[in-house]
Amino acid sequence: MERYDIAIIGTGPAGLEAAITAKVRNKTVLLIGNKGSSDKVSKAHTVQNYLGLPEVSGDAMAKAFLDHAHSMGLEITEDRINAVYAMGEYFALQGHNNDYEASSVIVAAGMSAMKPLPGEMENLGRGVSYCATCDAALYKGKTAIILAYSSEDEPEAEFLAERVDTVYYLPQYDYEGNLGGNIQVTTGIKPSAIALEDGRVILETDGDSYTADGIFILREQIAPSQLVPGLTMDGNHIGVDRSMATNIKGLFACGDITGVPYQYIKAAGEGNVAALSAVSYLTELKKTQV
Amino acid sequence: MERYDIAIIGTGPAGLEAAITAKVRNKTVLLIGNKGSSDKVSKAHTVQNYLGLPEVSGDAMAKAFLDHAHSMGLEITEDRINAVYAMGEYFALQGHNNDYEASSVIVAAGMSAMKPLPGEMENLGRGVSYCATCDAALYKGKTAIILAYSSEDEPEAEFLAERVDTVYYLPQYDYEGNLGGNIQVTTGIKPSAIALEDGRVILETDGDSYTADGIFILREQIAPSQLVPGLTMDGNHIGVDRSMATNIKGLFACGDITGVPYQYIKAAGEGNVAALSAVSYLTELKKTQV
Repeated sequence: MERYDIAIIGTGPAGLEAAITAKVRNKTVLLIGNKGSSDKVSKAHTVQNYLGLPEVSGDAMAKAFLDHAHSMGLEITEDRINAVYAMGEYFALQGHNNDYEASSVIVAAGMSAMKPLPGEMENLGRGVSYCATCDAALYKGKTAIILAYSSEDEPEAEFLAERVDTVYYLPQYDYEGNLGGNIQVTTGIKPSAIALEDGRVILETDGDSYTADGIFILREQIAPSQLVPGLTMDGNHIGVDRSMATNIKGLFACGDITGVPYQYIKAAGEGNVAALSAVSYLTELKKTQV
Repeated sequence: MERYDIAIIGTGPAGLEAAITAKVRNKTVLLIGNKGSSDKVSKAHTVQNYLGLPEVSGDAMAKAFLDHAHSMGLEITEDRINAVYAMGEYFALQGHNNDYEASSVIVAAGMSAMKPLPGEMENLGRGVSYCATCDAALYKGKTAIILAYSSEDEPEAEFLAERVDTVYYLPQYDYEGNLGGNIQVTTGIKPSAIALEDGRVILETDGDSYTADGIFILREQIAPSQLVPGLTMDGNHIGVDRSMATNIKGLFACGDITGVPYQYIKAAGEGNVAALSAVSYLTELKKTQV
């Protein structure tokens, strides 16, 4: 497996700036996220205070950022990362589509909609999972709930349905799909809490509940403390110092995920710092390997 | 005297971004520095990693930044600040041309060429001064040395010459002026150290020395610990936390002056954070005043 110098999770301003700075410093970069930059960029109304791009629309800003990255030969790998494991001299990244390896990692995944449900974190790995592809085998012949946040989750439901007995698919987006067979789709369900009783999962919803052997929560984004085991948090944010270093050697973070203010240029500035800190880390790492 | 909400010292990317963000938040802004942005911006060769401005020349980057600021109605006040004093609920700023008042201050003055001479800091206020206009009266009928770093210092030499007996003017730039009378101009002199002996100042130079009653060092920029009495430093840089707050309440710093990496987008990102922290400080300040 190719081992990249730097894996960057996130394609908002923090991730893209980290990528171009790493590229300028001749590092190999794995840039993982959404090919259209982040929704927070592309769907922004006019932004007035990104120095150098006056009165810019979100669309135009996303285009300027992506054009810049593409002009430097950077490509975005569309995938969602479920877990990052520190393996000593490198990191293993587990994605929905693929696994990856990198000598250092920059987490720039933003802060979009990742407030966990009550009971979610407590029961992770004990009936709660973020990746149907990864854990489907555990539920052979059983029942499973999918909380889905995007139409891209529909193939994952079909994959799961091939293995389990029944899938309860609860779309949290405007569902226009045609899932069927042993997949029971119910729209308009708002989840409120997860509980575990006698080894089964109970999903509480507005005025109702669903019971199954497992639940898959397919959010765009995973809470960082779950994404990277052992990561020190500062409230809801990843704890970093001014060099954007986390408590895990070789793993850096930048952008909204490291704290307020949630501003484009602040995120970009931090992406730059994170990339240069990763470059310094790689230099040190190389010395210890000689 | 008009009291500004926020005084910003410096017109590089940190200062300009702070200014546009403060303006978006409807604050009155005093922006002090060089009308052409900073030399470090305008004289840059191609910059590759300012996200959104690919392969941009220093000239073009300075123009993009200044156009952005001007489009928001911001004007740059050309002056050099010699001292910032915390007065409780406001700050007093002493400039070469004028004095100013502001409720909060953002120092974004960069790191250009401000390494002090040996003996300079130790003798500040005891024969060493940064402002001829301010301290000329102390040297009536005496002799004074001027270390000058720009042709803009020539009027200051003439002002001083009206009060003192003799001025030794030692230009540290390509001198093409016509100073005369009791001003003795000597070019090509490199200062190496300052000493105090029997109440007189001795400037050591390459193979020679000058003795006088006082010395005026007219650098573009003053060491931050001298600029703001009581400021906590972190080595050569101003000590700040991630909100860009210094140890002095209401005074913030951003850009190169707060530490490495010396990068344009890092400076701009920090300017954004400093401005929003100043805005929060002003909100708190207003509450205590009601």
